[in-house]
Amino acid sequence: MSSKKKNRAVELVLTMGDPSGIGPEILAKAVREANSLEDISFTIVGDGDVISAAFRDFCPGVSLSGDPKFNLVDPGGELGDVIPGKPGEKGALKALLSIEKAAEIILSSSDPGSKVLVTAPVCKAEIARVRKGFVGHTEFLQQAAGVPFVTMAFVGEHLRVVPVTRHVPLRNVPSFLTKDLVMGTILQVVEERRKMTDINDPAIMVTALNPHAGEGGKIGNEEKEIIEPAIESAREIYPGIEGPLPSDVAFYSALSRPGSIVVAMYHDQCLGPFKMLDFANGVNVTLGLGFVRTSPDHGTAFNIAGMGVADANSMFMAVKTAVRAAAYPSGMDTNL
Amino acid sequence: MSSKKKNRAVELVLTMGDPSGIGPEILAKAVREANSLEDISFTIVGDGDVISAAFRDFCPGVSLSGDPKFNLVDPGGELGDVIPGKPGEKGALKALLSIEKAAEIILSSSDPGSKVLVTAPVCKAEIARVRKGFVGHTEFLQQAAGVPFVTMAFVGEHLRVVPVTRHVPLRNVPSFLTKDLVMGTILQVVEERRKMTDINDPAIMVTALNPHAGEGGKIGNEEKEIIEPAIESAREIYPGIEGPLPSDVAFYSALSRPGSIVVAMYHDQCLGPFKMLDFANGVNVTLGLGFVRTSPDHGTAFNIAGMGVADANSMFMAVKTAVRAAAYPSGMDTNL
Repeated sequence: MSSKKKNRAVELVLTMGDPSGIGPEILAKAVREANSLEDISFTIVGDGDVISAAFRDFCPGVSLSGDPKFNLVDPGGELGDVIPGKPGEKGALKALLSIEKAAEIILSSSDPGSKVLVTAPVCKAEIARVRKGFVGHTEFLQQAAGVPFVTMAFVGEHLRVVPVTRHVPLRNVPSFLTKDLVMGTILQVVEERRKMTDINDPAIMVTALNPHAGEGGKIGNEEKEIIEPAIESAREIYPGIEGPLPSDVAFYSALSRPGSIVVAMYHDQCLGPFKMLDFANGVNVTLGLGFVRTSPDHGTAFNIAGMGVADANSMFMAVKTAVRAAAYPSGMDTNL
Repeated sequence: MSSKKKNRAVELVLTMGDPSGIGPEILAKAVREANSLEDISFTIVGDGDVISAAFRDFCPGVSLSGDPKFNLVDPGGELGDVIPGKPGEKGALKALLSIEKAAEIILSSSDPGSKVLVTAPVCKAEIARVRKGFVGHTEFLQQAAGVPFVTMAFVGEHLRVVPVTRHVPLRNVPSFLTKDLVMGTILQVVEERRKMTDINDPAIMVTALNPHAGEGGKIGNEEKEIIEPAIESAREIYPGIEGPLPSDVAFYSALSRPGSIVVAMYHDQCLGPFKMLDFANGVNVTLGLGFVRTSPDHGTAFNIAGMGVADANSMFMAVKTAVRAAAYPSGMDTNL
């Protein structure tokens, strides 16, 4: 489990996101930062004109056509005029085609593990107008990869967290929770923990659903009926699983446990504590795809698109997190 | 609303909590700190021997019998031997009698506003054995004061938060939420905001129930059906009410809004973010009693009772918060 692999070359595949948003800008800014990392090459997927303009403005000194480290792939399709802050169907379609192309590049590779995908933000509602049923990168990539079960993880400087349920009305959360879902999520986190942390065998702390972890059944029974059995079964595979813990205790305790990962039952329980400390630098990591995929934990920011003021820190952290996971899959200490 | 009252003398009424826990120790340590505050007197309610021993060890230099600032009140009842870390029925009963006596002192006063109650932690389960139906200080004091509706607030260095529902199984939270309950909680916070903050007219930020505030109805309807109408009605009385906000956004934003108060829908949504930053110094404030009551946001800590190592910071913060609210009811700037 802890045999150390040497650093290996990584191909970063980056998508531009919605061209009317801050995607191309933060992509170029993040590449400028990441360019100093060793053994990396860049495949940038998006509209040739949009990407070239962004690199001219925000990543000067890099020649997309003359440097063998860089590869610009335009997925085709007409884009037309791009107005910053004003999303439209053509831009949405181009963003979607870019994701499709990027997934194809990775999935058709003979060594998908050496390639990582970092996606800039898209406008889901706009893409849904040109492609019915589109709900987001995660679900789209799950389908493209043909995998039955993916998990969305959030990695920050202070915390690493994973919600068992995501965009579910609070009313429906208890009925979504099953032993299989909780256990499946925990085991996917165990299996792919290297995408979230440098530590080989981190503590995995599982929250309760109810206040005070149900107080022995006085405030709810899901702990006894669902979460405890799931933890017990998962512990046979990975002993370092703790819980169910009162969620306020779990997140606070995780702060002092290096590399620990908190698995929480639902969206706000998970992201409330996470965003208190990692609002500006959070990275979204998709587990279960068969390759590494990360993205910044923010949206298209149409309100500041085209102004050149976008903060690319979360995008750069997404790049670093992806490269680290791919280059050091067995947890070798890195300077990343 | 912002007319400034002068500092006024405050009588601190403190209860010892469970004598086998850290209550007497943190009480004495907090009084030692608070003794330098001006215009304060202390009425300490608990077992005479236990309190005297705690003051001898942790508040040297104070004579409980010889100093007119201090008043020791023993509520009577046999206590017997106290074994640190080992709660029992006699200690629980004495703790309960102390709360009863303290409430009586305040409620029978001709000027309850000049008196504040600070309670050290008790063992609820143990008290419930000697007084059926006891569930906690808050409910007990609500009954003693004869008030229909109280709210539990949490005040920390970074955040001030109020849950609309408290120890409710998550499954039942949506059915507990009504427009009246949400509005009643908001308006009690408006009315008693001076117990939580120095700022006269702070922003009051109300969270949504569902992820992303329901995304316009896609992820739940409680925002439209319950929370928005409650906010609109409450805004007629106090304009500075915002929401419903996605909870992760509300708590993070509150960090940069001095004195702001977050009203959240349920326990973990509220206390997860709060405890990330204010775990060690949180103060519990009961709103709606007709007098000021605070307590430290932790329990009896039986595991370290009798060792002399208990951290009294939260207890001291509870004292400071209570004194500030009573001495400056109109929000005058204080050095407290």
